[in-house]
Amino acid sequence: MRDFNEHTITDAVIDRFKDTPDPRLKVLLGSLVRHLHDFVRDTEPTFDEWIAAIQFLTRTGQISSDTRQEFILLSDVLGVSMLVDAINHRMPEGATETTVLGPFYVEGAPVFEDGEDISAGLPGEPLYVDALLTSAHGDPLPGAVVDVWQSDSDGYYDVQRSDLETAALRGRLVADGQGRVRFWSITPTAYPIPYDGPVGDLLTATKRHPWRPAHLHFRVSAPGYETLVTHVFVGGDPYLDSDAVFGVKTSLVDPYPVQPAGEGPGGRRVDGPWRRLDYRFGLKPV
Amino acid sequence: MRDFNEHTITDAVIDRFKDTPDPRLKVLLGSLVRHLHDFVRDTEPTFDEWIAAIQFLTRTGQISSDTRQEFILLSDVLGVSMLVDAINHRMPEGATETTVLGPFYVEGAPVFEDGEDISAGLPGEPLYVDALLTSAHGDPLPGAVVDVWQSDSDGYYDVQRSDLETAALRGRLVADGQGRVRFWSITPTAYPIPYDGPVGDLLTATKRHPWRPAHLHFRVSAPGYETLVTHVFVGGDPYLDSDAVFGVKTSLVDPYPVQPAGEGPGGRRVDGPWRRLDYRFGLKPV
Repeated sequence: MRDFNEHTITDAVIDRFKDTPDPRLKVLLGSLVRHLHDFVRDTEPTFDEWIAAIQFLTRTGQISSDTRQEFILLSDVLGVSMLVDAINHRMPEGATETTVLGPFYVEGAPVFEDGEDISAGLPGEPLYVDALLTSAHGDPLPGAVVDVWQSDSDGYYDVQRSDLETAALRGRLVADGQGRVRFWSITPTAYPIPYDGPVGDLLTATKRHPWRPAHLHFRVSAPGYETLVTHVFVGGDPYLDSDAVFGVKTSLVDPYPVQPAGEGPGGRRVDGPWRRLDYRFGLKPV
Repeated sequence: MRDFNEHTITDAVIDRFKDTPDPRLKVLLGSLVRHLHDFVRDTEPTFDEWIAAIQFLTRTGQISSDTRQEFILLSDVLGVSMLVDAINHRMPEGATETTVLGPFYVEGAPVFEDGEDISAGLPGEPLYVDALLTSAHGDPLPGAVVDVWQSDSDGYYDVQRSDLETAALRGRLVADGQGRVRFWSITPTAYPIPYDGPVGDLLTATKRHPWRPAHLHFRVSAPGYETLVTHVFVGGDPYLDSDAVFGVKTSLVDPYPVQPAGEGPGGRRVDGPWRRLDYRFGLKPV
């Protein structure tokens, strides 16, 4: 086979994948080639535009590292991450909605006991979290494992700060007999996604801002249930309707109501105002 | 705007690009988002498949360097490079067809005079090339600038060989008063595209071979004409109908006929059989 033209080349490329042993890979590649070629035919990129795309993708790979994943960021700002999330989590009534994992989840976070403080002493407005883990039907899930991680009061995660020697503002807790976990932390703040790389250049060139509204990340797992990956956003944040990664759902916004100074849960003395989050997470059965 | 689902997110992402100052960039991104989301909806990738794609793209960027462009290679094996080429080179009657530039073109190749040898002494079957540079109508183009580059008898380009200190099998010649350039070289051989990276893994997983049929690369430029980038393939090569990058066109295949030992052009004494290529290149007016 030779002499392909702009109309015949698509079928020729798909045919070249005909001996792919894994049937799923064959389907994925066939669809990829068809949509990618349709994009090229629709837009008719010049040679210079094609080279610019090659260079953009190359830079996106080369700036990625153990602590930075620029292709996930690109997927996020193009809405692909949330689309993949939506397709994989068509949730039943009573189940908590999902949102993106994001690039800052770390395996092996420190374990905390009921009521402990995960902030490692970082400054910020105190926050008390009381989470109830249940099935979608509302049945409590004792022993459910809850991972939480969040930004500090400057908008950075611990892995972005070279001055920290240990984990901070991330931890793992196990639900008690009533399916509850409780911990102290600080109120998260809005933050820009990293914008000093190719994805930042894309946002700048398109006059998009890089901000995400403030949120806590939660990952909840329990035997017999789909692992839940989600955020709880802070109500009133100015970026709730323009999240750079399209991740906000109304059901995931909580007011994090402000509490007066004085004695907080567990007898903790709080000098200024503080907030609390009471939230129920409902898990979908497998 | 929030609460996007798998159907509404596409328009939401495209809308987010509404303030893009460059109208062409806005069109390209809008089309990209639509086709990319359609691909995701059609194939419904799992989270693990999405992560595998992220990791593949990251590796593709990270293996690229000054002397290797794995994203061009990916574009090549998916037929995108030839599609972009076809769209940008709808050629009139009498004009030579185009094919991919490939990753081995180098700026600033050494200049040769009429009849010189570009092989830098590398071993192989001698080859004499006599090229006529004309307009699409056949009018000779004196002064046309011809860049030529090719693989050696082991299938490698000079930039792939760490043992070479100077350029070899590449050069620039200027057409004489009759629009001709002539030079000695060696017959190119078929070669595999680099398959020790992610693109090679893709070919392996899909049982595709990495071979390109033997060819000389030509790049011809002359004032008032579109620069021509093409190959001339060696007739009889076993890979002409399965070129890994879909680049073969019948009009670009030449028999490179074998000549008997004896005296060759320019009085050169050749001990064994040798080949010659006589080819006319027709350029499209700007």
